[in-house]
Amino acid sequence: MKTWQGRIASTADPLFEAFTSSVGQDRRLASYDIQVSRAHALALARAGVITQTEGDSLVCALAEIAEELHAGQFAWSDELEDVHTHIESRLREKIGTVADALHAGRSRNDQIAADLRLYVRDRTMECLAALLDLQDALLELSDRYQCAVMPGYTHLQQAQPLLVAQPLLAYVSMLARDWERFQDGLERINSSPLGAGALAGSSFSLDRDFLAGQCGFETVATNSLDAVSDRDFLVEFVGAAALCMTHLSRFSEDLILWASSEFGFVRLPDAFSSGSSMMPQKKNPDVAELIRGKTALVIGDSTALLALVKGLPLGYNRDLQEDKTPLYHAADTLVASLRILSAMVPHIEFDTNRMERAISSFSLATDLADHLVKQGIPFRQAHGMVARIVSDSLEQDRELGGVEWDEVTDMPELTARASVARKITAGSTGPDAVRRQIADARDLVGSRRHRLGAQA
Amino acid sequence: MKTWQGRIASTADPLFEAFTSSVGQDRRLASYDIQVSRAHALALARAGVITQTEGDSLVCALAEIAEELHAGQFAWSDELEDVHTHIESRLREKIGTVADALHAGRSRNDQIAADLRLYVRDRTMECLAALLDLQDALLELSDRYQCAVMPGYTHLQQAQPLLVAQPLLAYVSMLARDWERFQDGLERINSSPLGAGALAGSSFSLDRDFLAGQCGFETVATNSLDAVSDRDFLVEFVGAAALCMTHLSRFSEDLILWASSEFGFVRLPDAFSSGSSMMPQKKNPDVAELIRGKTALVIGDSTALLALVKGLPLGYNRDLQEDKTPLYHAADTLVASLRILSAMVPHIEFDTNRMERAISSFSLATDLADHLVKQGIPFRQAHGMVARIVSDSLEQDRELGGVEWDEVTDMPELTARASVARKITAGSTGPDAVRRQIADARDLVGSRRHRLGAQA
Amino acid sequence: MKTWQGRIASTADPLFEAFTSSVGQDRRLASYDIQVSRAHALALARAGVITQTEGDSLVCALAEIAEELHAGQFAWSDELEDVHTHIESRLREKIGTVADALHAGRSRNDQIAADLRLYVRDRTMECLAALLDLQDALLELSDRYQCAVMPGYTHLQQAQPLLVAQPLLAYVSMLARDWERFQDGLERINSSPLGAGALAGSSFSLDRDFLAGQCGFETVATNSLDAVSDRDFLVEFVGAAALCMTHLSRFSEDLILWASSEFGFVRLPDAFSSGSSMMPQKKNPDVAELIRGKTALVIGDSTALLALVKGLPLGYNRDLQEDKTPLYHAADTLVASLRILSAMVPHIEFDTNRMERAISSFSLATDLADHLVKQGIPFRQAHGMVARIVSDSLEQDRELGGVEWDEVTDMPELTARASVARKITAGSTGPDAVRRQIADARDLVGSRRHRLGAQA
Amino acid sequence: MKTWQGRIASTADPLFEAFTSSVGQDRRLASYDIQVSRAHALALARAGVITQTEGDSLVCALAEIAEELHAGQFAWSDELEDVHTHIESRLREKIGTVADALHAGRSRNDQIAADLRLYVRDRTMECLAALLDLQDALLELSDRYQCAVMPGYTHLQQAQPLLVAQPLLAYVSMLARDWERFQDGLERINSSPLGAGALAGSSFSLDRDFLAGQCGFETVATNSLDAVSDRDFLVEFVGAAALCMTHLSRFSEDLILWASSEFGFVRLPDAFSSGSSMMPQKKNPDVAELIRGKTALVIGDSTALLALVKGLPLGYNRDLQEDKTPLYHAADTLVASLRILSAMVPHIEFDTNRMERAISSFSLATDLADHLVKQGIPFRQAHGMVARIVSDSLEQDRELGGVEWDEVTDMPELTARASVARKITAGSTGPDAVRRQIADARDLVGSRRHRLGAQA
Repeated sequence: MKTWQGRIASTADPLFEAFTSSVGQDRRLASYDIQVSRAHALALARAGVITQTEGDSLVCALAEIAEELHAGQFAWSDELEDVHTHIESRLREKIGTVADALHAGRSRNDQIAADLRLYVRDRTMECLAALLDLQDALLELSDRYQCAVMPGYTHLQQAQPLLVAQPLLAYVSMLARDWERFQDGLERINSSPLGAGALAGSSFSLDRDFLAGQCGFETVATNSLDAVSDRDFLVEFVGAAALCMTHLSRFSEDLILWASSEFGFVRLPDAFSSGSSMMPQKKNPDVAELIRGKTALVIGDSTALLALVKGLPLGYNRDLQEDKTPLYHAADTLVASLRILSAMVPHIEFDTNRMERAISSFSLATDLADHLVKQGIPFRQAHGMVARIVSDSLEQDRELGGVEWDEVTDMPELTARASVARKITAGSTGPDAVRRQIADARDLVGSRRHRLGAQA
Repeated sequence: MKTWQGRIASTADPLFEAFTSSVGQDRRLASYDIQVSRAHALALARAGVITQTEGDSLVCALAEIAEELHAGQFAWSDELEDVHTHIESRLREKIGTVADALHAGRSRNDQIAADLRLYVRDRTMECLAALLDLQDALLELSDRYQCAVMPGYTHLQQAQPLLVAQPLLAYVSMLARDWERFQDGLERINSSPLGAGALAGSSFSLDRDFLAGQCGFETVATNSLDAVSDRDFLVEFVGAAALCMTHLSRFSEDLILWASSEFGFVRLPDAFSSGSSMMPQKKNPDVAELIRGKTALVIGDSTALLALVKGLPLGYNRDLQEDKTPLYHAADTLVASLRILSAMVPHIEFDTNRMERAISSFSLATDLADHLVKQGIPFRQAHGMVARIVSDSLEQDRELGGVEWDEVTDMPELTARASVARKITAGSTGPDAVRRQIADARDLVGSRRHRLGAQA
Repeated sequence: MKTWQGRIASTADPLFEAFTSSVGQDRRLASYDIQVSRAHALALARAGVITQTEGDSLVCALAEIAEELHAGQFAWSDELEDVHTHIESRLREKIGTVADALHAGRSRNDQIAADLRLYVRDRTMECLAALLDLQDALLELSDRYQCAVMPGYTHLQQAQPLLVAQPLLAYVSMLARDWERFQDGLERINSSPLGAGALAGSSFSLDRDFLAGQCGFETVATNSLDAVSDRDFLVEFVGAAALCMTHLSRFSEDLILWASSEFGFVRLPDAFSSGSSMMPQKKNPDVAELIRGKTALVIGDSTALLALVKGLPLGYNRDLQEDKTPLYHAADTLVASLRILSAMVPHIEFDTNRMERAISSFSLATDLADHLVKQGIPFRQAHGMVARIVSDSLEQDRELGGVEWDEVTDMPELTARASVARKITAGSTGPDAVRRQIADARDLVGSRRHRLGAQA
Repeated sequence: MKTWQGRIASTADPLFEAFTSSVGQDRRLASYDIQVSRAHALALARAGVITQTEGDSLVCALAEIAEELHAGQFAWSDELEDVHTHIESRLREKIGTVADALHAGRSRNDQIAADLRLYVRDRTMECLAALLDLQDALLELSDRYQCAVMPGYTHLQQAQPLLVAQPLLAYVSMLARDWERFQDGLERINSSPLGAGALAGSSFSLDRDFLAGQCGFETVATNSLDAVSDRDFLVEFVGAAALCMTHLSRFSEDLILWASSEFGFVRLPDAFSSGSSMMPQKKNPDVAELIRGKTALVIGDSTALLALVKGLPLGYNRDLQEDKTPLYHAADTLVASLRILSAMVPHIEFDTNRMERAISSFSLATDLADHLVKQGIPFRQAHGMVARIVSDSLEQDRELGGVEWDEVTDMPELTARASVARKITAGSTGPDAVRRQIADARDLVGSRRHRLGAQA
């Protein structure tokens, strides 16, 4: 049984069936497809295209199929090419020819567009929640190590000392932007293509606002031709996922560095590490490495989707069937990555002594220059003076501050803790600023969690 | 003169200077860099790091340099490695050692981050305006050809007849979403990294809200470490540009098809076409082809930026210098593409007779099926009946509706115009729905133009 | 049982197990892993690290496991993290502690590198064979339609008439280059990492030439550190696959155009087409559309792999585990696409009458210009004259050649067939040149098939 | 003057001229375009299409234009749309209407295809030479530090000790494979599209072998339609460049790590480093960071080109004009990156004492396990024993080998040097194997340099 056999004379070649089947990928969409069909049955009844009784019968049968799906009792077959055919076929088994009435005024084009939007909406909600969880975990860790100092880097060279909370809060900030991007996308996802038909709309008086409302869509994707071929919401979702993954990849990069014996700043939990089949001493930061690798694949997903839609003329084209592979991969990868980090982060232990010892005295050079500026020396000259002091110290194999210099009176305290304590600007690594950052971020996460609860 | 020579003993290798110089790319940022320096000078004076007189002197000299730039009299030199060095060096020529005071409490890291944000903000405003212009041009064309019919396609096979306005309005809808995406991004762009220093914030009491306000930033990018290494706004901008380009590419694909002699639906204006050096009869749709090609390059820009940021540990890394090549390319390409289409679209002529003649009677098959449904036949059966009628007609080399069929009573009018007229759902290709779409889109463009004027 | 448990104290978190498991992806590698282990067992025996009896016992048990795999009786378990662990565990069940001796002098790093190379070698051979099959199908079709004419296009505008065989032979040429690229890559694939250990080589006297020979590798990947972290062969394979897919995508683009009712050049076989669930008259070029879409995904695979390896420091990094997703996808997609086209191409029917009628007389303008050149008029002037003739004809709504022109004496025959017949250069669309192309391509395919047979 | 004005009535819109002009990008191709035109003039004369005298006149004038170009005296104008028009226009200034005869039997389609091939051929030769230079520099460095030991890493965790030469030789191996890939591509580049005309071949008896020979092409790209639209050689070149850049990026990643104060393994030369405008103590590994960043952009170039060609139907399409941006960028970036590394590598200094001290005793665990195997304990059991010894040692805060263990008799020497000395397999980090690697690589570079000289 094909929904379209009529015009096509010969039987499909088995190679063709295998090549074009989307059953494997469509399974995830089955519950959404039922929701969409339910809305359509109700709309057909309201429009008088089917009777109220037919409508009730369809709605009941769809509810039963939903239960079968939920209970894992729905039978999938490679011969029914897609999810729509499966459900229509099961309907027919259940209620006979009443099932034949359901497809009036719609096509698989608006159906799959609606299914995908409902799917992406749910995955977006999942990402939004997972983002808040990881922020919570990072904030908790920031709080725990609020007083510890560590070297701060630019160009992977020690630059200035930081409180450990400062890089952790940097990641919290990135994730907060990711949250906004997914929220912004949600509005464009949450728009209904139902009623658009194959491309032209319908000659039945289907109420598109009603259809949208039945599926919880907030707006109607007006133009029927755009509605069936628009995959922007999906490209945007995967783009946001790719950008979010780069943040997790950067965090992973830092974890891998910090866990190396040369840095030695963190101990990753054994329960999230593996060893070597050959080298008995190894303990590897597998999670971080895999996230870094998976990020590359999600970048590939984003590229693939853009290349996919680039060349299409208007109207639905079968090329779009391929959108599901990168979509599913990106969504699964992002959610899994956020969740495993949320589980692992609470068990990360910083070696605070080692971090403090690792701070080179030379990373306090800016403190010295700032000190000279406060004594009235223009910064560029102060910078030059300190650069010479640094050079001389290195040549004499001394620490910065290890000798008295004529140029510097009232030598400030050149320790990491003193340096950090001197930072007073908003958002800086100064203790007050860090406390403020943690408090503000917690407020934000809290209010977003509240908002998310209201949306769900 | 290097701003950083101090610690580095030997002279830079010429290969190194050429390889690392960003002068070529930084020129576009000069006016923003001056704006940022002006804000910093005022903030230093407010913080008492420099005197009011020094502050005034810096502000005046920066204004003069801005004028030199504007007048094209600013001298660029390959020896001064970047835009910051150029302006600081020119300041020193003008006001001597007062210039040396300006760099206290900041680094090139927060400076370039602010420059880039101001640049991307301006380019976003340009894109927003250009998007509205192209929508206007498409709406005008939709209005002009509101009554003309054409074949509608799925799978590039004739599906159902459409009003010409319907595909044009589909593109208007896509551009409307692009507008939203750029607007959403604007909020994340419009956040100030100033006062973040190199990575840790500052020991001078720089007022970050004041700094932000001086540059018209709406919020402060709080965490100092994130502020200097965040390029999300730029990745997001280029991602939105790539998605928007795919819309222009799809429109181009349609134009190229429609302009082929086989379709023969449009005549592209001579002033936007070229011929062949060899084949005297050729008239080529160059603009559309180039846009399609340029879209591929902007997809590459988006990929490049994601791959660029993927692997970076925290803090500024010099890799980020490379962000400007894809950013500039994407922004230039998108703006140029939107503008040339806005100029060309008003001169596109549809061959309405040819389009109407091109509509196959078989694309009215759905009308026939709907008719049967309205007579009480379940859709799936109606579909099957019509499929057989189609097959028989093709076999007998007849048009659809060319013979009477026993199954069909009260045969509906099987013309494209009648088909279109029967479409009654919102957003459909029915004449009323199209008129409504045009009116609504005009309202939206109008209100957005108003909002954009208020933002600028 | 983990091969590496020793050093890691606590039990793995279930999230960690799920996140890091590669069992799902490793199954394809099992037979290669056995081949590699067999070679290692023999090498250990030769080196005296194990006894001959132990070696024999390992070889026998591995052969049995290979049979279990082949028979589908091998038990996979989510608890054993990868293919190596599965096979080692099964070995232990079979031969007890003798299995414990096998891993001396090797690590999973050189093992997986060898497995992957053997896998990619086999997939390359598959691609090579499938490329020849599709070339055969295209040559057969070229031969069948050798005398038919069709419009030739540049910029999708009719340019000059062609024999139908000419575009088909263009695709044969592209596939011939793809064949070379896969062959060239084969040399770099066919190099053995065995004996490289985890990164440093081994203190056992393992004979790397012997190990290579046992697995049919032609050379040894010398440097041990490079050998375990090199994935170039895989990036190159996927790059070649992506380029090959763009050829199939271009062919698909042509098929989709030719199958549209506006072009009407080909009838695609019903057995390789689908209809519409809504529009009873539709017959869609699904295979071509899906190939075009799948090409985008393989481009994404290529991008992903480059981004994956870009940022890795030396030595094996777990990021590399992710290389299998894009590799498998690209290989599966390319092979399936080549095969379905090979099956479909023989059933493509050209509508030769329609193609000949579709040729615009104006696409003979170059013939006219060439004619004038042969009469002594410099080409640029001839081009200008013909351009004016074209313009005048269009204005007067005449065909080219429909009026006598004073400028043109001995007006040549302006038909598509005459135009094609006048083409005399090698590789042109002239009948002799086309016959020669077909014959040469057949010779090449034949000799390559012979070579491939010898390689296998 | 347009070469194609004839058919197009109105003047081009200035926006159109700016949008479609390729003058900026074509300049690099001018000398190749002259070479191609010279060959065509000779072929026209041989075919009797023009007289010998006309041929001579064209050849002389082209030689003069070549000199003007070489001397920087050629006048470029934005009004002449491309390089072909510029040269034809200059020819006309020089020799009047004789210039009008040159374009018979060719089009800009085969011309630009030939120009690009000649360009890519030259850039490939440059890359081949630069690859050998960098290999030489790395071999020289390997030789200098042949006896120094350093930690070897997997997962960025210390794995086993290495000779410093081993990672350097790993990069030599990667570059050797890059060399092969560029060489393999050369054969496909070096094929002549000349004589293919616009798409169909020619009615003039142009000798394609002669044309090819005049430009030094080794083969003829037979099928005329393929010849004008094939850009495989360019996609392949950029793909090879992207893969080569990932090698340079990996080397850069290692350099950045090694130059950090935590690793402290190398001192990068001052002449190839920069400091900070704010932090006087900084010395940054800019070259390595920029290469890492530039690699992302070349990955974007590769993606862009694949997406560009993906959707094109047969025949030349104007989209292809965009191929030059990523091509030039990739070629320039790769050559510059290879050259600056070749210049910098000789000045890299390893801190051999620090590297030796950095080696953790635990990275000798495999030596201990191997020792037990040699005493007859199966490896998997030996691995478990050593894992316990490692755990106990860590718990007791002892080095590996710091206590006697009952299980281990005849404790081997547990030093990095002893470990390295024990490695005896080919390609291992053992001193003999390293010496052999250096000698073999030098031989290979030498013979390739010889071959390259012969090709040039």
